[in-house]
Amino acid sequence: MKNFDDHTICAISTASGVGGIAVVRVSGSCAVEICTQVLRLKNKDLQFETLQSHQVYYADFYDEGLLVDDVLFSIFKAPKSYTGEDVVEISCHGSMFIQQKIVETLIHKGCRAAQPGEFTMRAFLNGKMDLAQAEAVADVIASQTEAAHQLAFRQMRGGISDKIKNLREELLNLAALLELELDFSEEDVEFADRTSLLKNLHDLKIEVTTLTNSFSFGNAIKRGIPVAIVGEPNVGKSTLLNALLQEEKAIVSEIPGTTRDVIEDTYNIDGVLFRFIDTAGLRSTQDQIEQMGIERTRKKMDEAQIILFVFDGSEKLTTEFENTLKELEQLVAGTDKKLILIANKSDKNTETSINKYADSHPLIFVSAKEKKNIHQIAEQLVGFVKAHTAQDEILLSNARHYEAFQRILKSIEQIENAFQTQLSSDLITIDIRAVLRELDGITGVSVVADDILGVIFGKFCIGK
Amino acid sequence: MKNFDDHTICAISTASGVGGIAVVRVSGSCAVEICTQVLRLKNKDLQFETLQSHQVYYADFYDEGLLVDDVLFSIFKAPKSYTGEDVVEISCHGSMFIQQKIVETLIHKGCRAAQPGEFTMRAFLNGKMDLAQAEAVADVIASQTEAAHQLAFRQMRGGISDKIKNLREELLNLAALLELELDFSEEDVEFADRTSLLKNLHDLKIEVTTLTNSFSFGNAIKRGIPVAIVGEPNVGKSTLLNALLQEEKAIVSEIPGTTRDVIEDTYNIDGVLFRFIDTAGLRSTQDQIEQMGIERTRKKMDEAQIILFVFDGSEKLTTEFENTLKELEQLVAGTDKKLILIANKSDKNTETSINKYADSHPLIFVSAKEKKNIHQIAEQLVGFVKAHTAQDEILLSNARHYEAFQRILKSIEQIENAFQTQLSSDLITIDIRAVLRELDGITGVSVVADDILGVIFGKFCIGK
Repeated sequence: MKNFDDHTICAISTASGVGGIAVVRVSGSCAVEICTQVLRLKNKDLQFETLQSHQVYYADFYDEGLLVDDVLFSIFKAPKSYTGEDVVEISCHGSMFIQQKIVETLIHKGCRAAQPGEFTMRAFLNGKMDLAQAEAVADVIASQTEAAHQLAFRQMRGGISDKIKNLREELLNLAALLELELDFSEEDVEFADRTSLLKNLHDLKIEVTTLTNSFSFGNAIKRGIPVAIVGEPNVGKSTLLNALLQEEKAIVSEIPGTTRDVIEDTYNIDGVLFRFIDTAGLRSTQDQIEQMGIERTRKKMDEAQIILFVFDGSEKLTTEFENTLKELEQLVAGTDKKLILIANKSDKNTETSINKYADSHPLIFVSAKEKKNIHQIAEQLVGFVKAHTAQDEILLSNARHYEAFQRILKSIEQIENAFQTQLSSDLITIDIRAVLRELDGITGVSVVADDILGVIFGKFCIGK
Repeated sequence: MKNFDDHTICAISTASGVGGIAVVRVSGSCAVEICTQVLRLKNKDLQFETLQSHQVYYADFYDEGLLVDDVLFSIFKAPKSYTGEDVVEISCHGSMFIQQKIVETLIHKGCRAAQPGEFTMRAFLNGKMDLAQAEAVADVIASQTEAAHQLAFRQMRGGISDKIKNLREELLNLAALLELELDFSEEDVEFADRTSLLKNLHDLKIEVTTLTNSFSFGNAIKRGIPVAIVGEPNVGKSTLLNALLQEEKAIVSEIPGTTRDVIEDTYNIDGVLFRFIDTAGLRSTQDQIEQMGIERTRKKMDEAQIILFVFDGSEKLTTEFENTLKELEQLVAGTDKKLILIANKSDKNTETSINKYADSHPLIFVSAKEKKNIHQIAEQLVGFVKAHTAQDEILLSNARHYEAFQRILKSIEQIENAFQTQLSSDLITIDIRAVLRELDGITGVSVVADDILGVIFGKFCIGK
């Protein structure tokens, strides 16, 4: 962000392109004065100086002698505006010519073209929202599905911020007790009950670990929940996937893959974005090339949040099945991944012996060919995600926050060690302060370097 | 337009796609009531029933239990709104999810999705603007250049409508005088001075002819002014075009050609859209294939509004030059086409004998290679267009109006004939009434059939 100043800025805030109407936003101390020069009120009885905040007025927009458009506009007087500064919103006809001309004229009259995210950055700098909330605005705007929207919207409404406030308080309590101890350190008195402190610290660590681990899921909701489809050849994996997508009227969308720089298809099923990963299968083999394929499958399954294990449900189960199942169970053990067993071809015949597996994992009998019971798979997939995104559950979905929490976790482990090795309190408080700084960096309470703000808001669209 | 009813309608009015903000518009008698069900005011002291018109309020938008977004909204109470009905404009975050969800929720609550142009059609039906003005709204929104914008904007502001009002009055005067004559027809008294009437009629005819003929130019401003570049091979036509486009930083844009279904490049030079037509040249030949090429060139030159005749200005002029010039002069004679002589290669040597042609046509000495004087061509091109689009000049640019004016012209000629052949007044008044009906059809004063309205507004974007 080159222009980190208090210039009055302007930009088209609506989507780029031709539309019925478009909105141009002006923010800064000169917003009203600049607009006075270009807007002529239709109601000649009104004076610009006496216009009310939060009211809609009708005016002609002029570029010197040239009548550009008739517009509606509103003034939002500071601090009761999005940015906390004086804001004027001009609603014009949505032609390319008018949109550009209005912005050009405003710039000519003294505005600067807004950088991406600059309105929201100002909202942050003026205390209208904290940094984590400001970052969430970009995620809200980018959300394609209901799940991604809910996640981002909750963060924008202060979800992460509240969580951080709690963590902060717990740490401050810890620090306060330690400082008290420190004041009397020469007398070698241990005021704080170290066992109780250690217990508090342990609870804190669990809380932070949970939050840190939630990133893989939170991020998956934004980019598509990876679902691996595993199973031997000819058990009907592709037929199953097609049936699923067709039945659920899944909307295909392409998003650039982050890890491998490839474009992957994702599907919006009932408000959740899923990314299906077709795998090569997992049987034991001596063939080297096949082993490489299996290695790739294992890696993909590591990525996956949900594994659909598809097998032929009309035949007796083989030891091959048992082996794969064991491997998959190991994979999901101790993680929040989910394994779902899909007994396909159940139109032919149903092996009742399969039922015994239903105790430990969801088991669904389907017929991909006959499109029987397919909706149960969708229900399981969506249900799994909805369970993770319950009304009040907070998930990390922002990479910057995730990185901060990884460092926080490391610091907390150091504090824990220091406690256990009976290190002196003043050394411990240094680590605690480091954690506080990280927490404050997320919400932007402590001073955040300009270049970091530049990176954060540079990802926004212009006009927000 | 299938749904020609008084349902409350809604649509996204801003450009489609992701933006900082988006605006959803609701119009109809139930607009406020429907919005009451989905908007919850942030300020708990306010009651929905007591909200003011033209004021901006802050609210949460709910789809039943689901919080969709926090939005700004304004109510525009009838008749002080765009459509003349109750209108609610909701300004939300511009994600695809939010935009779609808000429209879906409104539809679920009783709105109907608006047809293309339906808001503007309602504005027309409710007397907020006449039909010619309503049609111009779509042109304003589609305008890419300043010239096209000015043309459309003037029409939206009632330019054509005023013209039609004048024509209507003149015709009514004529009719009144004739009717008077008719009342006393049995007494064989000629009240109206037929010579004077004929003079008035002739003036009217000239006015209507000018307006009808302005369509080719008005239409060209919308679609790109066709400029033919004529000249023998090797006089530097392409170098010249390239130099021109480069120097003027012309923005290339593609618009679908209307007459030949091809995509042609057009260039925005100083606010005017030009469409350059490269031609094969015009020399006399016996070769049949070459003759066909020349035939095509002639056709293209017929299309052209401006002809750039490029020749080698460093050499003595040939009879070939003289012949082509003569032909081009014939082509432009009696039309509003413009012929510009371009003496290229003037860096080498300048044939002063060329100057004698400067009396009848603009003559510009340039060097395409050295990029000398190129801007003079741009000035001539733009100047020609600006002269035709002077502040108060009204140009037809709408095909429906053009067709009506062609019929009007025919009727006026019939009236003129009738006068001259001393036809009785009652027959003449029938023709006058036909013209009045056509004029009223343009502004929509007389009843316009639903299917015609459907065609007119079907070309709009949704949300306007």
